[in-house]
Order: sequence, then structure tokens, then C-alpha cells
Amino acid sequence: MLTVNRLNQAEAKLIIEGAVDKAKSLGVPMCISVVDESGSLIAFERMDGGKIHSITLSHDKAFTAASARKATHEVNQACVPGHDNHLFGIHTAMGGRFCIVGGGLPITFDGKVIGGIGVSSGAPAQDLDCAQAGVDTFNQFASQ
Amino acid sequence: MLTVNRLNQAEAKLIIEGAVDKAKSLGVPMCISVVDESGSLIAFERMDGGKIHSITLSHDKAFTAASARKATHEVNQACVPGHDNHLFGIHTAMGGRFCIVGGGLPITFDGKVIGGIGVSSGAPAQDLDCAQAGVDTFNQFASQ
Amino acid sequence: MLTVNRLNQAEAKLIIEGAVDKAKSLGVPMCISVVDESGSLIAFERMDGGKIHSITLSHDKAFTAASARKATHEVNQACVPGHDNHLFGIHTAMGGRFCIVGGGLPITFDGKVIGGIGVSSGAPAQDLDCAQAGVDTFNQFASQ
Amino acid sequence: MLTVNRLNQAEAKLIIEGAVDKAKSLGVPMCISVVDESGSLIAFERMDGGKIHSITLSHDKAFTAASARKATHEVNQACVPGHDNHLFGIHTAMGGRFCIVGGGLPITFDGKVIGGIGVSSGAPAQDLDCAQAGVDTFNQFASQ
Repeated sequence: MLTVNRLNQAEAKLIIEGAVDKAKSLGVPMCISVVDESGSLIAFERMDGGKIHSITLSHDKAFTAASARKATHEVNQACVPGHDNHLFGIHTAMGGRFCIVGGGLPITFDGKVIGGIGVSSGAPAQDLDCAQAGVDTFNQFASQ
Repeated sequence: MLTVNRLNQAEAKLIIEGAVDKAKSLGVPMCISVVDESGSLIAFERMDGGKIHSITLSHDKAFTAASARKATHEVNQACVPGHDNHLFGIHTAMGGRFCIVGGGLPITFDGKVIGGIGVSSGAPAQDLDCAQAGVDTFNQFASQ
Repeated sequence: MLTVNRLNQAEAKLIIEGAVDKAKSLGVPMCISVVDESGSLIAFERMDGGKIHSITLSHDKAFTAASARKATHEVNQACVPGHDNHLFGIHTAMGGRFCIVGGGLPITFDGKVIGGIGVSSGAPAQDLDCAQAGVDTFNQFASQ
Repeated sequence: MLTVNRLNQAEAKLIIEGAVDKAKSLGVPMCISVVDESGSLIAFERMDGGKIHSITLSHDKAFTAASARKATHEVNQACVPGHDNHLFGIHTAMGGRFCIVGGGLPITFDGKVIGGIGVSSGAPAQDLDCAQAGVDTFNQFASQ
């Protein structure tokens, strides 16, 4: 049998709080999703003013980061037509659910991915800032 | 009437074993799919630690290689925006199920495609190495 | 953090073997899927002669049993139009991926669901027999 | 390796002709699909006046009959809520692609399914009549 660790609900709330605080400081209302290590949604918040398509995009960024165990913007940089890494096209996988737009980050503990966060509604760089704030909040909490 | 050859279950198992051995030697746990000549799944294995999105990606690489009768990384190289081969966009076909990420190979016998293998979880070059190991295992078996 | 147990690849193989043995004794070639506790596919086998639509049906029965933590035929019995349990319609959930046809069973350890098995190609009662044989094989192994 | 027989293009055309003749005699313009033994489309004809949704329905009836190796109206009769065969819900499988509306028939040769026909646009009994005419045409041809 395998034994795996995954985020719980209380931790997911903390992570969203961290992202929301950052979004407020940027003045950009965001959609924020937190998933477990299998990519299943644990918590979601659409701040007042968050965009409709960003509901799905934040789900998919979180899923992708948790499953690929990599930031979505890193996959984005590698997904280039004609590149000899032969990765281009991964962005349409799973009906497009595999999302390589910036703003998705894995959440790790003891070197293992235990979940992911995805943020959407701003520019990808803003989305990433908020996702990172969520991760930082978790890491601070986990290191205590 | 047409008469076609296709992989059977025992051959699919052999092919997966070949790919698994290579994956172990690379130290990368993989998702491995084997399909018949019509692209229908015969066998699948997610090695412990294989990625979640790679379940679907390995299915789709195997399907694409069997159906296109071509390695997915070869389609990848040809799928470039603005190229006068007019192939770009094929990676979104069938809701993205047509997968051009490297790691899918057709399996042939007597010059005819009888199935396909798709591997996913590593870099596409690693995925391809494992897929090739699966093909090699089949070819060795078939030439006996 | 949550800590969860899930089936590993070796256990999934054992479970499939148990189901295959039963299918052979019934003389019905089956499609057999084993998923982890999150419903993600670990292993799949289409016996020679297994039906094409049963690839997806076996995936979906395994997913549903693991996720609902209940046999699919039990959900089937409860899913009746006009019943005051108000359950009818659940069979269309997730684009029909929530499958209530008999032949899906959860796999449990220490009272917790750690995976699921789904079998398809025969009559639902035959599918269920094979799924049960897979579960029995696991339970025998786990009790040693 | 497995060796399977499947309909070829010339046979598919004959089958469609048989169905079209029947449709003309009924005065109902039909959509007619013929698939191979794996459920992949070989030939399709929408008679002038055939219905739009029937394009998909005829595909899906043909797929279902070939894959289930059974007439779709027979599956229809068995798919009843609360029945102790536990089959209800199969009509939503594969996103509803598994179609149990009457008008789909398997096509067999030497006791093996080698394809399927699906007809749609009329009442299911009319669709079935046309599908049967297609099958009869093939059987006559094959017995020569």
C-alpha cells in the first residue's frame, strides 16, 4: 500500500487567505483554487469581482501544478512550437484542462507534492504573485 | 472484408514490461498505455509515483501514434504555426485527444501498424526512451 | 495534513489477476480497471475479446465505487425516478462518468476506501462476480 | 497477435444502399452510419431531409451495436430503472455516446461482429427497419 500526505481543509483555507491578502494589496479580485495531491478540489474562493472564466482556469492551474509537480509558468516556457523538447501541444491535453498559463504552483511538504494552488483573473504575473503568497503562507505555517 | 492484425493482451503486457524496465533504469515512474490498431486501450499501468495527468496523456499518445501511424514527436516537429505544411492546429483535434507530445510510438508487424504505445510522466525524451524500449521488446519477441 | 492509504501497483495487479481468473471461469472476456482512492486509474486490462465501450465503463465503475465508497449496483437500486430519496439523475453526473451499472466495488482496508475496481463486458451480475473476485483476492492478500 | 475481420468500404456502401432503399419505401429520409468492429465510422449518408441530431445519433447507434454486439433496442428493453439486472444508467456512458435508442444493429460474419449500422431520423421502429434492411443486404451479399 502507498501512504500519501495531502492538504487538509484548514490548510487550504490558510493558503487561500494568503492569496487573498496579496490580491487585495494588488487591487485585483481573484479566483483561487486549492487542490489535493491528486488534483481534486479542496477549496475555492471567487473574490467579489473575480472573473467567470477564471473559476475554471484557477481549478485547472491548480490541477496542473499538483499533477505536473511544477509551476504552470515553467511548463509555459517549455511549451514552444518546433522546440526540440517535443513538449508543444501539452496545453490541449485533457480537453485543455492541462493549463500552462502562469499562476499555478505545487504545494510541497518534505519534498513531496501534497497539493496545488491556482489563481486567475489578473495578468499571469499577478496571478503567480498571489499563488506564491498562498504557498508562502503554507510554508510558514508548516515550518512552525 | 478486411482482415487486420492487432496486438493481443499477452503482447501488450510484454510491451509494458519493456517500458517499465527502462523507466526503472531512468528512475522515473511512468504511466504506460498500449492500444490496438484502432486506438482502443488494451493495457495500462501507472507505476507507483506516475503522474495523474499522464494517465490521459499516455492513452492519447498511444492512440495518436497508432492512428497517425507515426511517432508523436515527429508530428510535434511538423506542427509549427505559419509553416507551409499547413499542419498546425492538429494538436487540438478531437478535443485535444490527438496528442503530439513526444512519447508515443506505433507498433508495427510486417510493415503494418498493429497497435501503439504511449508513455508519460518524464520529459518527452525520457517518455520516448521508454516507449522505444516497449517497442524493442515487442520486436525481439515477434522476430523469434 | 491528511494521511491517506491507497493501493499500489503490485496490489492492483493482484486484484486484476483475481478478476481475470473469475472471468475465465465464466467464459466472458472482460475489461478490468483498478483506481486509487481518488478515482485515478492505476491499472487496466482488456482481455482478448473484451468490448470497446467497456474500456470506459470499467474505468467509470471503478471511479464511481471508489468515490461513492459504495458498490455501483447499490447506487443503481436507489436511482429510481420519482423515489423520495431524490437520488435519480445521479447517473448523468460528470457527463455520465458517474456510473451506476453493476460491476463496480470499492476496495477497503482498515475500514477506509483505498481504491476501487470496475469490470465490464458481461451482464452486470457477471461483471460484479469478477469485481468481487478481485476484491476477495486483495482481502486475502491483505489479511496475511 | 489477434486477427480480426472487419467491413470494408465496398460492403459499407452496399449496406447503406439497402438501408436507403428501405427509407425511400417508408418515405422517411434517414441518417445512416456504418462502423467497423471497433466502432470507427466507415461510411455515412444523410439523405436529403435527414435530421441534424441524427448525424450523431446514427454514429452512436452504430458504435453501440458494434461494441455491445447487440441491437440497441435490446439494450433499451433491458435498461429500466430499479430493475434487478442493474443495467440502468448505461445509456449515459461515454457522455451519452452509448446509445440505446432503437435503430442500431451489429453486423456479423461467421458468428463474429465485424461492424455495425445505425439509422436515425424516423421513429425508432422505422430506424430499425432500415438498419435491418442494411443488414439483410449484407447477409445476402456475404452468402453468395
